[in-house]
Amino acid sequence: MTESNEIHLKDHILYSIINPKSIAIFGANNKFLDTMGAMQLRNIIAGGFAKERIYPIHPKLDIIQGLKAYKSVLDLWEVPDLALIILRPDVVPEVLEECGQKGIKHVIITSGGFREIGKKGVMLSQTIDDIAKKYNMRFVGPNCLGVYNGWYGYPEKKNTHFNTMWIYAIPERGKISIAAHSGTIASHLFWFCKQIGVKIGKSLSIGNERNIDLVDILEYFKDDPQTDVIGLYIEEIKRGKEFIQLAKDITPLKPIVAIYAGGSEAAYRSIMGHTGSIAGDDKIFEAVFKEVGIISTFSVKDFLYYLRAFSYGIIPKGNRIGIITDSGGSGAMMAKAAEKYGLSIPEFSEELKSKLKAYVPSVANIDNPLDLTFQFNQYNLYVKIPKILINSGEVDGIIIYAVFGFEEIMDVVKKSGGKSYEEFDISNQMMKGVYLKPMQRFVRKKIAPIFYIGPQGYSNPWVREFIKSDIPIFDLWDMPIKTFSVLARYSNYRTHHL
Amino acid sequence: MTESNEIHLKDHILYSIINPKSIAIFGANNKFLDTMGAMQLRNIIAGGFAKERIYPIHPKLDIIQGLKAYKSVLDLWEVPDLALIILRPDVVPEVLEECGQKGIKHVIITSGGFREIGKKGVMLSQTIDDIAKKYNMRFVGPNCLGVYNGWYGYPEKKNTHFNTMWIYAIPERGKISIAAHSGTIASHLFWFCKQIGVKIGKSLSIGNERNIDLVDILEYFKDDPQTDVIGLYIEEIKRGKEFIQLAKDITPLKPIVAIYAGGSEAAYRSIMGHTGSIAGDDKIFEAVFKEVGIISTFSVKDFLYYLRAFSYGIIPKGNRIGIITDSGGSGAMMAKAAEKYGLSIPEFSEELKSKLKAYVPSVANIDNPLDLTFQFNQYNLYVKIPKILINSGEVDGIIIYAVFGFEEIMDVVKKSGGKSYEEFDISNQMMKGVYLKPMQRFVRKKIAPIFYIGPQGYSNPWVREFIKSDIPIFDLWDMPIKTFSVLARYSNYRTHHL
Repeated sequence: MTESNEIHLKDHILYSIINPKSIAIFGANNKFLDTMGAMQLRNIIAGGFAKERIYPIHPKLDIIQGLKAYKSVLDLWEVPDLALIILRPDVVPEVLEECGQKGIKHVIITSGGFREIGKKGVMLSQTIDDIAKKYNMRFVGPNCLGVYNGWYGYPEKKNTHFNTMWIYAIPERGKISIAAHSGTIASHLFWFCKQIGVKIGKSLSIGNERNIDLVDILEYFKDDPQTDVIGLYIEEIKRGKEFIQLAKDITPLKPIVAIYAGGSEAAYRSIMGHTGSIAGDDKIFEAVFKEVGIISTFSVKDFLYYLRAFSYGIIPKGNRIGIITDSGGSGAMMAKAAEKYGLSIPEFSEELKSKLKAYVPSVANIDNPLDLTFQFNQYNLYVKIPKILINSGEVDGIIIYAVFGFEEIMDVVKKSGGKSYEEFDISNQMMKGVYLKPMQRFVRKKIAPIFYIGPQGYSNPWVREFIKSDIPIFDLWDMPIKTFSVLARYSNYRTHHL
Repeated sequence: MTESNEIHLKDHILYSIINPKSIAIFGANNKFLDTMGAMQLRNIIAGGFAKERIYPIHPKLDIIQGLKAYKSVLDLWEVPDLALIILRPDVVPEVLEECGQKGIKHVIITSGGFREIGKKGVMLSQTIDDIAKKYNMRFVGPNCLGVYNGWYGYPEKKNTHFNTMWIYAIPERGKISIAAHSGTIASHLFWFCKQIGVKIGKSLSIGNERNIDLVDILEYFKDDPQTDVIGLYIEEIKRGKEFIQLAKDITPLKPIVAIYAGGSEAAYRSIMGHTGSIAGDDKIFEAVFKEVGIISTFSVKDFLYYLRAFSYGIIPKGNRIGIITDSGGSGAMMAKAAEKYGLSIPEFSEELKSKLKAYVPSVANIDNPLDLTFQFNQYNLYVKIPKILINSGEVDGIIIYAVFGFEEIMDVVKKSGGKSYEEFDISNQMMKGVYLKPMQRFVRKKIAPIFYIGPQGYSNPWVREFIKSDIPIFDLWDMPIKTFSVLARYSNYRTHHL
């Protein structure tokens, strides 16, 4: 992205909301856990915000969490870039009015109790609309958790973030950006993101969208050089026409993965009490998503796995996969799943088979899936054979099932009275250099997606090395197949819409 | 189960294979990792097998892994209960012949290279059949990993197991029993089992089933008091008629979850090279499974989650679920998924709503899903409200989404300059007594399934407490809904077939 984009972005309404240099906060106190405002302030401080430019506003307290508190926002010496309001809904208009008088232009209204509670709340919404209009203010919310910006302070500061949400587990920073009508989707997923390596840059809880809406946010994500992939959790779409046009423009360049949570009777009841939106028929949304190239799912894990897959930035050219496995059972299951998901597992040409022969144990069948059964040349398994397959041009991507790491084995060897096998310990340490680095170099060439599967799970130290190195890794073999099929479908869409 | 079952079981062919008191092993040596036999012996020793009754047979070595080795099985002073053969296929007949001469009646033939390699292998299979027949021997395999028995030595010894497989991660012992045409499915899944708490008692890799087959094993599982739930990975069914009758008898009493890996073209190629079976049309298998009440899936994670769900021993009476959540987004998604999976989310009666009122924050909507948003009375959230719902009789099960544990919060509090909040630390330690114990008591009443969801994931210490306490816990909200729908479907089948 060019600098001109950056300048353009700084003019966008969202910029100051996720990158404020000063902030007024209404509703914080010194309590712990049982008030949201207190915890939101803790998160802002913990994220590395300049303390001297955080202004807690409180009618009684003088000091809040070690910061000087003010009776009114009107008492401040500067006009804060952002106001964050976490107060009872009926006092929001008064406070918002003062923010307007002060000259504050950007606000996050966390408070719930607006249209989602019925008629009285709708009137209150109208009141805050009027105040915002009078002072030319823009706001996120109400009824939201606000924003998380993992790029806050970047590149000057390396380890800062801006987090107004009720979440304490911070994912690694990456170029996935999320906007959600649910604060949970915008925040609670961070734990799972950390576990499997979904690198989030921005995550926005947009609540009732009374002012800033999904279309505003998509405009920003579209031009944002820190956004490569977009995740949306949608309960309604307010500006349908604009949304469709914008999505059409974005998807060929930046994949969008969306959950539409409406469309069923019980979901309707749930959503009414949640953001109070009136959601439409599932089929209409599905048709729209398909037309504009949005990848749609109603599974939260699919959502995160798809986002992660796109964030690696490697889109296959087609739907042909090569499967390499040290286990026949997983190979058979993957082959079956692949056909169900519309992928092709082509038979290898004779030429390719003869090239593979040198690297495959004599007992193994050379076929696709390629079952190496008892393969101890791990370099061949992880690097050499995948390279041959990719370079053959006969497949558009590879899935490799193999056991990584040997923690439990050492324990068994000890129990069985074995020697300490020092040379083995060394080789375990050397794996990083001998296998992981070549794998990483190979993956980074971005010729085709290469998915590894390690059944020991995401907490295994060796699997964590994969995640750290941005090598796509899965714990079992359902999701690699499903995810690959989504990449292949997107690839096909993009070919026709770029 | 009565004692008569036990006696009957001891006569079954499988009994001595998974409970041998003495074992001869062909193919073990002092090497490490690069020979299977060596590692299988290590596992047997590490499992707590009486060392003086393990007999490694080797033409040259005198000592193997600290054990006295013998040139021939004929040299042994006793007739071992079991022989384990891990040798090149062409030497198997000779060794098997000697086992027969010695009087050994039970054998596991791990060696591959039989029918799965073509004509020569089929002839070899015929040869071993003939030898087994001559000496009245029964064997598992060939082309398998053998067996895992978590109940080995029980109840005399608490921490023993019998493991001839190539797996080192041992799951907690429970009453799930697995039989698989794939050694990977029988073993590599143990890592995931440990992670989410799938408690495996027995797991059998049955390979080519040349002698002991699936029907033999189902006969055993049927009467086995240590088997409550059965998991099958199937590439073919040899005795179809017997399988169907047996499955029909078993499923109303002990749920069976099965993966059928055949039925697709690429899966066929994979299976041919794997166990060499000729698998049939997917639709035929689906129809058979449905008729006999087998829960079928082609997803490995579904397989494990379903097994775990059944192992809790709580089957819902119907398909009505109550959803309790501290997050609107997860509630909406669960509601939508529930309808897709054929579950019902009934609206609560006025009577029930008025009962709930006292325990729900005033801002919350009392409805199903019940969104408690910002609920800090965790006892109400985890125990009290679920009890009211279950006792109302208006739902057949409950799913509760809530954040558990507060590890990351303490870190944020510290970073935000907060006090150390000692009272909070105490309460975190007390949670076990105050929340977990009542939850456990409630779940154990087995009135209806109660599923908890904690987004912090399975490695979270608080979530591990759930697993230890046998309280059903999930990391995100896809799987609880899907799993509940499977329980409800099974419940319906059982009602009509008991």
